[in-house]
Formats: sequence, structure tokens, C-alpha cells
Amino acid sequence: MDAGLLVVRSDPLNAETRIERLADAEVTPTDLFYLRNHFPIPDLDGEQYRLSVSGLVDRPLELSLGELRDMRSETRVVTLECAGNGRSQFDPAVPGEPWGLGAASTAEWTGVPLAELLDRAGVQPAATEIVFRGADEGNVAGVDAPVRFERSLPADAVRDSGALLAYAMNGEALSAPHGYPLRLIVPGWYAVASVKWLTEIAVTDRAFDGFFQAARYWYEWAREGRDEREPVTLLNVRALIAAPAPGTSLPKGETAIRGVAWSGAERIARVEVSLNDGPWQEARLIGAGGRGVWQCWELPARLDEAGPLTVRARATDAAGRTQPDQAEWNRLGYGNNSIHCVDAQVI
Amino acid sequence: MDAGLLVVRSDPLNAETRIERLADAEVTPTDLFYLRNHFPIPDLDGEQYRLSVSGLVDRPLELSLGELRDMRSETRVVTLECAGNGRSQFDPAVPGEPWGLGAASTAEWTGVPLAELLDRAGVQPAATEIVFRGADEGNVAGVDAPVRFERSLPADAVRDSGALLAYAMNGEALSAPHGYPLRLIVPGWYAVASVKWLTEIAVTDRAFDGFFQAARYWYEWAREGRDEREPVTLLNVRALIAAPAPGTSLPKGETAIRGVAWSGAERIARVEVSLNDGPWQEARLIGAGGRGVWQCWELPARLDEAGPLTVRARATDAAGRTQPDQAEWNRLGYGNNSIHCVDAQVI
Repeated sequence: MDAGLLVVRSDPLNAETRIERLADAEVTPTDLFYLRNHFPIPDLDGEQYRLSVSGLVDRPLELSLGELRDMRSETRVVTLECAGNGRSQFDPAVPGEPWGLGAASTAEWTGVPLAELLDRAGVQPAATEIVFRGADEGNVAGVDAPVRFERSLPADAVRDSGALLAYAMNGEALSAPHGYPLRLIVPGWYAVASVKWLTEIAVTDRAFDGFFQAARYWYEWAREGRDEREPVTLLNVRALIAAPAPGTSLPKGETAIRGVAWSGAERIARVEVSLNDGPWQEARLIGAGGRGVWQCWELPARLDEAGPLTVRARATDAAGRTQPDQAEWNRLGYGNNSIHCVDAQVI
Repeated sequence: MDAGLLVVRSDPLNAETRIERLADAEVTPTDLFYLRNHFPIPDLDGEQYRLSVSGLVDRPLELSLGELRDMRSETRVVTLECAGNGRSQFDPAVPGEPWGLGAASTAEWTGVPLAELLDRAGVQPAATEIVFRGADEGNVAGVDAPVRFERSLPADAVRDSGALLAYAMNGEALSAPHGYPLRLIVPGWYAVASVKWLTEIAVTDRAFDGFFQAARYWYEWAREGRDEREPVTLLNVRALIAAPAPGTSLPKGETAIRGVAWSGAERIARVEVSLNDGPWQEARLIGAGGRGVWQCWELPARLDEAGPLTVRARATDAAGRTQPDQAEWNRLGYGNNSIHCVDAQVI
């Protein structure tokens, strides 16, 4: 149903979570899990569905959904965030979906560990990259033929990534908008790596140059007159404030500043909150957390004076990475982890 | 883009306007105009597009978009409301899209008067119904073959309906989600009549029995043990409250209670507001209004005491129709025009 998401673009559908709902629970209800689609949502028939594993493998595979379900499964909580989350806050404006801050959600995913499937196929030593093909395709500006959504991961990163071939989300079969029947889930990576409607895995010894690998999902900076470029990989560290919501009025007295925080590199070490440019105060982290899984956080506060209230929150991960006041502008608007600032009112 | 709508179902996309935005302006910005789709959004090629007019006509037509644009055009403001708007508030729950109250919006539509196109084709005297076929189709529960979205109107209702074959919305070409290249707009009728992606008009002397005519969009009541049934046609009269939004806190002092009101039968005669079950006070109507076009309304109020605030608003049209406290429950959940009630807080 996906009820309650905010539409960012209707066709193809891109819709974000309302961030005032983010910290309701560690796991986002499926209805409120953001949706990012590059093309119309494929309508795959689970009965006919096959996942193929081919290329530099000893034993190419063709697996039905039933065969995948019969393999050993794992369930893990993983936060996904679109690389373009926060893009609308870059100035000057950049092309691409104009996400606010709600293109991030957390679910409990169940599926086959990718490493086990690759072991079953027998990845050959020459392999350097693994290409994941979705069933979604369509036209993109500047390209003549329809483009499939395809992404690759370095072969040596896959084994330890904890990636799952997920067929269930929050205890139910994946819905079509979330990738039915199978979605790759790569913990700690921006969600572009977590290919939906996955139908093919191709093991190769060449650098993959598909459109969404080569022409999108790169940080492109102009630094001191020189062009620099880096691929989008792990989630930047960031905290978001869920309460107060922007523009709300809070009565004087006790309140709780609340939100979520995550990082793709390491677990969250701390979240700090500043009220009206006052000192940074450490918030309480709730739950176990871990690399690539958000944690809820909370800071009790006493609001004594009526007037404007500015709340800022910043996260630091266990690798010491923290957030900039303003994330560095880049041409395609990725990875914006500027410190979140919310303006409210005490009355 | 359709940014800011609330998703009700993601696939096919159904998304509603946030009602706190409804009364911002008489005409809803296209981005905030609600979206109701029965099937995936068709991707029609405007160059290849043809509208056919066939059946009981003297001169069957095949018109390109250019030929339609070359005909005399009219521009009119029309409010559309989904027949299922408010369905989620029926108790017990009914099947169908669980709309809140935001499946209603108003736009300025530009296109060819339907009556003129039918005159050009020459509708024969034997004609009783006119069938409008959209390009959208898909599977529905209980039917073996894919179903097209098709609706008919009584031939004698068409001439005076003021219906347009619209190719522009709010001064821009229709977007795909809103029916590109051509949408029928039938003022005063529930929006099911306003067929999107219109490709065929068929004039007939038989009762049309397509799925969406015969099996959907009927009020079905069980009254004193007897089944009764009526087709969904004109918009029920109703007022919605945009401000205050539910759950908001208002400071003591002056405020403005605001909203919109409309009816498919007649212009709005009055809107009345009751605060905390007090007397009904007449609100000021803003703008010209008219049958099938909403009017904004406003009531200045003074809030002297802190505590809960319950706001109710009811509209009456020039035909004397008004709103029930609770609209009569019906099996498919149509036409819910119960008096709107909003709970807020004065602090």
C-alpha cells in the first residue's frame, strides 16, 4: 500500500518518508519505506521467475524463487538511503530527483546470503566484478536504446559485505514496488547497490560500464579548477531530527528531541544536539545499532523561554567520521550529509 | 513531478493531496493535484496518438492531437473528486483504495468542448449512451482477461454537461499521470467520469456493461434487509477544513478557520462552522464558485481559552442539499460526505 509517503515524482514513482515519522521505531513500517524507481515498476511473475548466475563461475545457476527459499536464509535489519537524499538542499540546484531528507528507511530483510549463492556457483579466481541486473528498464536522456538498471560491486567486496538476496521485507514477501520477487540488499552501501527486481548476476573480469555504473552515482567535484570524481559507495554518516518537526510549536516545559543516525562505515559512536546555537549536548542512543543500521536517539530538553527554537544534530561514527555544516556540492547531488537543522517555535 | 502528494497505494499509483494545502488557492498546483490510477500509467506517444469517434455517428472521426488543438478550445476551472474520497472513514471498513480526504483537487482545464466534437461527428438520434475508452488496462480480481478502463455517459446528459476534451491543465500540456495526451473532464461529476488517456469515443444504443461501469462505482446499500443500488454520478455536497490541520496547536487569540466546499449539483450557498459544538456560524465564501467548482471559505475566530478545540464545517448548496453527520455506509465506500471534524489544541 505504501500509504503516507510523500511523492517526489509520480512517474516513475519516487516517494519519501515523512521524517517526523522516522524515529517512531527502529524498523520503518513497509508502508512508510521510501520508494526510488528509475523506471516503471516491473510486474514479474513469481512462478516464471528465475535468477541466473553466469560468467566466470564453475557452475552457472538458474534458480526459481522456490529454490532460493529452500536455501539457508538470514534475516537482518538494514538501513537503505538513496544517494540523492537531501539533494534538494544543494545550492545551486542540481539535476535528479529533488529529494528532501526522507529517502532513507530501515527494514528487516530476509533472504539468501549472497556469498553462499556465489560459493554454490563457484566464482573463478579471475573474477574482479559482479554485475547485478534488475528487470527494470527504460529510456534515459542522451541514450538511444532502452537502458536496464544494472550495477556492479567489486568481487572482493562482496564476500564480506553481508549482502542478502532478499525475498522478504519486514516478515512479508517483497511487494512489487520494493523489488518483488528478489532484491539485493547490501548493508552499509548507498541503496543504489541494492538492486531491485534482480534477475541476473554476471561474474566478470572487466570493469562494468553500464549507464548507471559509469554515468551516474559518481561524486563529481570541481576543486581548484580541477575535475575530481569518485564513485558513490558507503553511506555517509548523518543524523536526522524527527522531533520537533519543522515549523511546529512546542509548549514551554519538558520535551524530547528525537531522531535517527547512521553510517555505512561503522556503528554510530555519538549524536550531539545543539539548541539555539548553544553547546553540543550528547543524546542517548537507543538500541544496538551497528554498521549500516540506524539508531534512534533522544535528548530530553527543558524549554524555558517562548520564542524561536533552532535544533541541530550531528552524528559521529566509530571511525571518527562526522558531519560537515555544509556538504560539498557535487554536480549530481549525492551524499548530502550536511548537519540537519530544524526551526520550530516555543510558545 | 507531483511533489508533496501523500501516497495511498504505490502500484498502481494513488496519491492524495494534503488537505492542509487545499485552501491555499482556488486552483491546486499541478504538483499537488491528487492522482488516481486503476492500472499502470500508459506511456502514449503524442505523435502517434489518435482519438477515434465511432458507432452511431454520421461521420466517424480519427483526430490527431494537432487536429484537436486546432479546434476551438475552452478553458474552465473544474474540481475533481474521487468517488472513494473519505472511504477510509467508513466503519466497518470497505474494500478499495483507502483514501483519506485528499482525493479532491481543482485545476484549470483547456480543451475542445465535447459537444462540438460530437456535432462534428453527427450523433444519430438512436444514440443513448456514449462510451469513453482510456488506454489504461490491466487485471482485476475475478475477471480472466485484462480490463480496459471504460466509462459511459447518457447521451442526453453529454450536451449540457460542459464536458471538455482537455489537453492542457493549469496552462501546461497534460502530464502522463494526469492523462496525457487527452483527458475527458466532466464538470460536476465524480472524477470516474473524467476518463484519462482517452483514445476512443463510441456512440451506442445499448446499455454499456464494461467492468468499471457495471461492477464498480455503484452505491450499494442494504436498507431494511433489501439491497438497493444507484450509480455514482454527481458530486455530493461537502466542505473540508484545511486550517487548523488535525492535531495542531494554535496560540490563543485571533485565528482563521479555512477550507474549501463544493457540490456537483449546484453552486455552494453557504458554509457553516461550529467550534466545540457551539452554534453554527456562517463562513465567508471567497471567489465566484459555481456548480462543480470549489470555493474557498474562511471564518475569523477568537480563541480565548486554552484546551481542546473541535472544528466542524458543513456546506449547503443552492439546491438545498447539505451534509449528514455520518454518510450512509455503502459496500464499495463511495460518496462519503460526512461533516468534516478536526481536533486541534489551543495553547
